[in-house]
Amino acid sequence: MFIPLGFKFSALPCGIRKKDKLDLGLIYCEGKGISWGVFTKNSQKAAPVLIGMKHIKNSSTKAILVNSGVANACTGEEGIKRAYTVLEELSKILKIKKEEILPASTGVIGEPLPVEKILPNLPKLVEELAEEKYTSFAMAIMTTDTFPKIVSKKTKEGIHILGIAKGAGMIAPNMATMLGFILTDAQLTKEELKRLLQRGVEKSFNRITVDGDTSTNDTVYALSSGAKKLEKIEDFSVHFFEVLEELAHLIVKDGEGASKVIKISIKGAKSKSEAEILARSVAESPLVKTAFYGEDPNWGRIFSALGKTKIPFEAEEVELILNGKPWIKELKFITPEEEIKRELRKSDIDLQIRLKRGKQSYSLLTCDLTEEYIKINASYRS
Amino acid sequence: MFIPLGFKFSALPCGIRKKDKLDLGLIYCEGKGISWGVFTKNSQKAAPVLIGMKHIKNSSTKAILVNSGVANACTGEEGIKRAYTVLEELSKILKIKKEEILPASTGVIGEPLPVEKILPNLPKLVEELAEEKYTSFAMAIMTTDTFPKIVSKKTKEGIHILGIAKGAGMIAPNMATMLGFILTDAQLTKEELKRLLQRGVEKSFNRITVDGDTSTNDTVYALSSGAKKLEKIEDFSVHFFEVLEELAHLIVKDGEGASKVIKISIKGAKSKSEAEILARSVAESPLVKTAFYGEDPNWGRIFSALGKTKIPFEAEEVELILNGKPWIKELKFITPEEEIKRELRKSDIDLQIRLKRGKQSYSLLTCDLTEEYIKINASYRS
Repeated sequence: MFIPLGFKFSALPCGIRKKDKLDLGLIYCEGKGISWGVFTKNSQKAAPVLIGMKHIKNSSTKAILVNSGVANACTGEEGIKRAYTVLEELSKILKIKKEEILPASTGVIGEPLPVEKILPNLPKLVEELAEEKYTSFAMAIMTTDTFPKIVSKKTKEGIHILGIAKGAGMIAPNMATMLGFILTDAQLTKEELKRLLQRGVEKSFNRITVDGDTSTNDTVYALSSGAKKLEKIEDFSVHFFEVLEELAHLIVKDGEGASKVIKISIKGAKSKSEAEILARSVAESPLVKTAFYGEDPNWGRIFSALGKTKIPFEAEEVELILNGKPWIKELKFITPEEEIKRELRKSDIDLQIRLKRGKQSYSLLTCDLTEEYIKINASYRS
Repeated sequence: MFIPLGFKFSALPCGIRKKDKLDLGLIYCEGKGISWGVFTKNSQKAAPVLIGMKHIKNSSTKAILVNSGVANACTGEEGIKRAYTVLEELSKILKIKKEEILPASTGVIGEPLPVEKILPNLPKLVEELAEEKYTSFAMAIMTTDTFPKIVSKKTKEGIHILGIAKGAGMIAPNMATMLGFILTDAQLTKEELKRLLQRGVEKSFNRITVDGDTSTNDTVYALSSGAKKLEKIEDFSVHFFEVLEELAHLIVKDGEGASKVIKISIKGAKSKSEAEILARSVAESPLVKTAFYGEDPNWGRIFSALGKTKIPFEAEEVELILNGKPWIKELKFITPEEEIKRELRKSDIDLQIRLKRGKQSYSLLTCDLTEEYIKINASYRS
């Protein structure tokens, strides 16, 4: 792992979740940290989101504090108050301003943030800060995730980028679908970091919110310690985007109950937005997702999902290409059905849908829909 | 059952589906039939939909022919040709014009209509027409339905209305989600029937398409034999709408894998369309649907589903009422959680969501989302 200079991590079980489950995590940034954030568009923004939206505007960020188990969403004024109580206490221990801390929470909506469990654990959390504890941090933010999600890259100049995320479901607003933390030691201006993060999120995390759900808590923070001078921003951007894209892929791979990651690409649409509408309609169709789970080359479901967007097209002109093999052309199988079935058995699937309406394209990642998804979500609280 | 005067029914297994499964159904209307139809808005309209849209404009309709197993959708020109081959043959046997027949199909998309199986069975299908065979007809149009859906009413004047529908899933475009046939002996003008059907569908079948999916084949036909003079159109309307609403309820009840029917009502919205957007967002949320299945009073999922519409509201002002019992007010449980859990165990659930934005309301029916839904849809074709 390439841990950026100037960062320390810590994690503890403070009893919000089951006994001994890590549920409180801290990232500390030495030096003046430059930060930005991208947040959920849900109208019911959680308390930590509302606070984070303010705090990223400050010139300095020194810490990120995250808890899992309780989302602190739909908690009204009391929720904001409780979040600030925690930030104030932490700021005293770290000897920084509370405005220099970015908060994030993930878990059940509507339950009050248990400050009485968090406060007594803050001194130890700070005490145990260490460079190598990034894995514990990644575990502390997990909810239904089955593995911690960590990606790191090193640029040619020797700059490090570390990304940590949580999220285990395409459609899990209640779980605060996703949190992401992108750390680097590159010297960047706030404006540069903001532009990079916004572009990166558009190309990664925004291409996996398969059913258009955005949770009350979705947050991606970027934070740079500025410890290393940056010369080649192009090379850095490539690596920065890769970190985001790989994290996004890990989230889909760990999708609740998912057995397959499916990339859906639309080519030959009239406009970018038309391509996106078509791609999302296919990627979010429960019938397409269950057909992939059933490894059933039931291509009619794909055409029906395209058609329900009401964007007009000639079915005869649509081509489907599966894992590089021509599947459907002029409404007929091109590669024998048996061979297509074999492709469907793979766990990574690439579906290209070619129209003849124009030159625009869009792609996104989805996963299949399985019985396990229902089990996880029917019993989440109990 | 109140079978309207002037109608006969017939059904046969012609081998499109499994051996001996009824898959071809016929309704014959004596006298000059007045008809209208309401169709899917999917851009990929099936061949029978395209033909039906034309034929309802004619002044006389004498028959409705339906097959299950193959949807005859995404079949291009060839699909239209095959559908007409069948209609022409039937019109010869019945000694009517082919334009006097309304077709409908439901089943797998993209497969060719097996005319070679249908044609030889048409003479027998006509021969066996009988008033009492409406149940066989209702069974012939079933796909994943677990029971035939038949509702009938008699008005004070003695006019009969018979409704037969198929559909077993909120979200089953591939199954050609729903077909409906509303028959009556009331003397109505085409204009009257059209108005009644459009209004009725808006209040019934359009309030159960929970994920916005409209299949390639969705069709509701209304057909009147005109055998009885109609005096009181108000009284007739009430009964006509009831038939549609009860059929819609039966479809949700038979929702693929569903264990509960849930009525979602939004009250106090600023506009009708705002109320509809909010109601659909809740009714279509997989997380809300799995929570109902899990009988989990996880109200945060409902708030999150409301919030993802981006319609602004104060969470503190939202009230939830479950089966008439106050559930959540000012973000807190009003009725004890245990009592709410008991309500959630019922199979018919009424959820009212009250906002304080205005005076408009909207309601619709949904069902819960269960493992069984996945099983049915992952393995439908095999």
